[in-house]
Amino acid sequence: MAMSRIIRKQTGNFLEDFRPGQIFRHKGGKTITEGLFTTFTEFAMTANPLAKNARYARAYGFEGLVVPPGLAMLVAFSQTVEDVSENARTNREYVDMRFGAPIYVGDTLEVETKVLSVVPHRKDPNLGIVHVQSTARKNVGARDEAVVMTWQRKVDVFKRDPAAELHPGEAAPDAIACELWLPRYDPSVDYKSMAHLSSPDSYFEDFEPGTRIEHSRGRTMTSEHIHLTAVLDNTSQVHCNQFMIDQDPDRYVGGQLIVFGGIPFTLCLGLSSPDVGDNALGDIAYPTGRHTAPLFAGDTVFAATEIRAVQDFPGRPDLGIVEATLYGHKFERAPQASRSEPTASEDQQVAPAGWKKVAIFELERRIAMKRRSHYA
Amino acid sequence: MAMSRIIRKQTGNFLEDFRPGQIFRHKGGKTITEGLFTTFTEFAMTANPLAKNARYARAYGFEGLVVPPGLAMLVAFSQTVEDVSENARTNREYVDMRFGAPIYVGDTLEVETKVLSVVPHRKDPNLGIVHVQSTARKNVGARDEAVVMTWQRKVDVFKRDPAAELHPGEAAPDAIACELWLPRYDPSVDYKSMAHLSSPDSYFEDFEPGTRIEHSRGRTMTSEHIHLTAVLDNTSQVHCNQFMIDQDPDRYVGGQLIVFGGIPFTLCLGLSSPDVGDNALGDIAYPTGRHTAPLFAGDTVFAATEIRAVQDFPGRPDLGIVEATLYGHKFERAPQASRSEPTASEDQQVAPAGWKKVAIFELERRIAMKRRSHYA
Amino acid sequence: MAMSRIIRKQTGNFLEDFRPGQIFRHKGGKTITEGLFTTFTEFAMTANPLAKNARYARAYGFEGLVVPPGLAMLVAFSQTVEDVSENARTNREYVDMRFGAPIYVGDTLEVETKVLSVVPHRKDPNLGIVHVQSTARKNVGARDEAVVMTWQRKVDVFKRDPAAELHPGEAAPDAIACELWLPRYDPSVDYKSMAHLSSPDSYFEDFEPGTRIEHSRGRTMTSEHIHLTAVLDNTSQVHCNQFMIDQDPDRYVGGQLIVFGGIPFTLCLGLSSPDVGDNALGDIAYPTGRHTAPLFAGDTVFAATEIRAVQDFPGRPDLGIVEATLYGHKFERAPQASRSEPTASEDQQVAPAGWKKVAIFELERRIAMKRRSHYA
Repeated sequence: MAMSRIIRKQTGNFLEDFRPGQIFRHKGGKTITEGLFTTFTEFAMTANPLAKNARYARAYGFEGLVVPPGLAMLVAFSQTVEDVSENARTNREYVDMRFGAPIYVGDTLEVETKVLSVVPHRKDPNLGIVHVQSTARKNVGARDEAVVMTWQRKVDVFKRDPAAELHPGEAAPDAIACELWLPRYDPSVDYKSMAHLSSPDSYFEDFEPGTRIEHSRGRTMTSEHIHLTAVLDNTSQVHCNQFMIDQDPDRYVGGQLIVFGGIPFTLCLGLSSPDVGDNALGDIAYPTGRHTAPLFAGDTVFAATEIRAVQDFPGRPDLGIVEATLYGHKFERAPQASRSEPTASEDQQVAPAGWKKVAIFELERRIAMKRRSHYA
Repeated sequence: MAMSRIIRKQTGNFLEDFRPGQIFRHKGGKTITEGLFTTFTEFAMTANPLAKNARYARAYGFEGLVVPPGLAMLVAFSQTVEDVSENARTNREYVDMRFGAPIYVGDTLEVETKVLSVVPHRKDPNLGIVHVQSTARKNVGARDEAVVMTWQRKVDVFKRDPAAELHPGEAAPDAIACELWLPRYDPSVDYKSMAHLSSPDSYFEDFEPGTRIEHSRGRTMTSEHIHLTAVLDNTSQVHCNQFMIDQDPDRYVGGQLIVFGGIPFTLCLGLSSPDVGDNALGDIAYPTGRHTAPLFAGDTVFAATEIRAVQDFPGRPDLGIVEATLYGHKFERAPQASRSEPTASEDQQVAPAGWKKVAIFELERRIAMKRRSHYA
Repeated sequence: MAMSRIIRKQTGNFLEDFRPGQIFRHKGGKTITEGLFTTFTEFAMTANPLAKNARYARAYGFEGLVVPPGLAMLVAFSQTVEDVSENARTNREYVDMRFGAPIYVGDTLEVETKVLSVVPHRKDPNLGIVHVQSTARKNVGARDEAVVMTWQRKVDVFKRDPAAELHPGEAAPDAIACELWLPRYDPSVDYKSMAHLSSPDSYFEDFEPGTRIEHSRGRTMTSEHIHLTAVLDNTSQVHCNQFMIDQDPDRYVGGQLIVFGGIPFTLCLGLSSPDVGDNALGDIAYPTGRHTAPLFAGDTVFAATEIRAVQDFPGRPDLGIVEATLYGHKFERAPQASRSEPTASEDQQVAPAGWKKVAIFELERRIAMKRRSHYA
């Protein structure tokens, strides 16, 4: 049978397609399975027992294993990719990312996005910045429907037609009620009997503003990222279509498949977890964040955390709030003779001779942290 | 202790071992876990919300997330490999593959195979074609025992002894009752409120015979295929034993580990899913299918679908039947100067200069498709 | 904000930190999910239906899919890495590994370790041998709390300071009640109707002391090991930090990332499974075991089993005990001219010309094996 008509659908939107005020109700939705849990909580070395040890999570007042913020972000963010960033060059910035209701195995997430503005790039006529606000809800229509996460992001999107006009104007972000749900402190629970399950030196009392914690471990990213990105339904071709890259390597960052930004986001959270996240009852918000360099298969990711402030948690004498900035970095081979001073190889925060340190990520965090006085 | 006896068991059968009429009740069986679900539904970019969004699947009248046809095929087919194709060169052809009862997390599949015929290869005295019929049942012995899938295949199997006689004759395939179970259309369900979760342009009304849909996305296969194949219990050594290949590369297709055919099968279904599968209530049957070239790690898979016919679904005014052919292809570096005409790099269906397009797979599909009139 | 203080925490203990009698209650704990089950039971080609087929497992008297010994070991052992072997060079020896209560999806494992002795290395002042005893319990504090596994191991740990004194003395291992739980033989169950689901030639009656079974299949390990190790919470940097290796390759075994020993441990069990493990009702104990060479990405693993003794199972006429030794090996390219005699390439137990066979693992096993007389 001769085919009389050929269809090749456009996937995703280009810069001129976005209108301020426009709403995307994203396709799909995603139920959190034990498979997703294993694959993404643990590949990133998350250490908080709330995400690993169901008897601990239940004793703390949760219904079961709690989806950690990195997995929540990976799933919710990925739902927005087809509509918002399938034709993006890079993700510029995260703004006002907040967490709400806890997410458990079996919950289904669905996400909506509102376009706030579309601004042309100053130098590159092929690009512009799309500013959006997205909100993820769980179990829509059910009794336990709840907002689990909301965030804004700014993303560099390609134009389809360099000469196209952009939709002008600005829409105000919606006021989304999204406050971190926390189990109450229950004096009848023997929290201390479980204190050995988390780090002894990462309670609220241990964090001092002005401290930089250089996390000891590194993790090499492999071509696993292609599989991981597919499992997240992230449809952007720059993560998984090697043939497309091979056709025109100069067009793509680094001339190779780039790792989806959610992966270093989650990995840096994981690497910091034994020092900063083990005794968190939850992450309240990430006021800002950004990727500062791309990650590729073969790179090894490291992380550090700077403690900026500590404060009481209103109404919760058992908790405090830690304000911190999480940094991610990797090392690249430096041009010959760019450094001559050898450095200790065991310090994985400083570039040794022949290498340069490349900052890849930063994220402001507000963390609800347990006090030793109440829990250990 | 000196060992007085060495045993090296033969695994799988050789050509001369098969007898028409012979029945294999395959070992193992496999319970569908949330782990299998995550790994295989999602790596292939399946977009149908029935397989991703439990609240949607339940609203449609299923018990929960529905195993999509690609995962059903991967699990059921793999159960037959040890007995039927562990010593095969390639899988030639799929015939009359039909789907029955829906499969959910927690269901256990067990598979039987009947040998229909054994025919010597015309040119190669070391090979012959084994024609089998396999049937997968779920929850054998329980109240909800049901046939979930049945299919025939023809496979090129090696002889152990080139001089051996083959078992002659022919056995008729069994008449297996295996009709796609579909939830009833329930006018009290607000299907339209969920219509944003699937593609707006892939309802029955959208398919026109004579149309070729060239699916936009590609997916690069990595060495992940070795792990994936093991997780499926597929025991064929040509997928996972690099040492065996290294001993005698000329003996094996391409001189390297070959990707298990179920993987491009599922991947092509997934790549076509946003355009063709999103609003399917189920795949009724795959009348024929075949692999036309091998897939290797590093290849990028693309897909296209040709719409051959559309028809009413008897007794179901809310549905129609789409008859289509799914094609998979990849590109290989072409010998120097074999092509001189450059082509647009954004068209991933046409080989650019220096490359040739290689058809890898084709599959006839009959799909039970929702009508927009009833669901959106 | 200028950071006034830099913290870089030591992770894990060094040789001089260990004291005989010291107890580690390891952090984290780990709930067995269906994701872990899929990833680790099946990647290793485990063939026992108890771990794959829930209807079979329930018919045999288990509550559902049973965690096979390889997965139990991977999870329990990994919990001890941060405290015991994060700064280890290699794991020397497993001693008196015993299994107790069955582990199901949903069970949470927590592990404790007692230090038995710390002995300096005879030749290398930077190293010493730490001898520990570890015990894994499930569902601590609940009605079904139970010991699921206990084992000793000896591990070569680095000193932080080559001049440091070691803690002398010796602590006796605790007497840990840990006996394999087995479902009773129930004459009302139609075991024979399920006999086709396991190998017909691997019942107790089939094992003859003095037999060496050379398992037919091999499995190539890929860079997947980095992901697998992270999912297990194994924090040792020699498995996942390529940058660290690149700084000083000479310091690390083979100058490359080494595969976590639990992976060949499990993989050898899996490769032997169709011949030795299919009709096991459980593994009773592994009296001794050791890694004899490292495994790297790209290596193909093979296995063999020697049957050493068979004996009755006291009080269980339906079972017998098989005593066996499991061996793992791989092949390495041999230096030119080291071998001149070509050998059959189909025998994957003997090195062909140009290769040498390298023993990588051995493990004594005591297996509770079903008798054909009662089950088939």
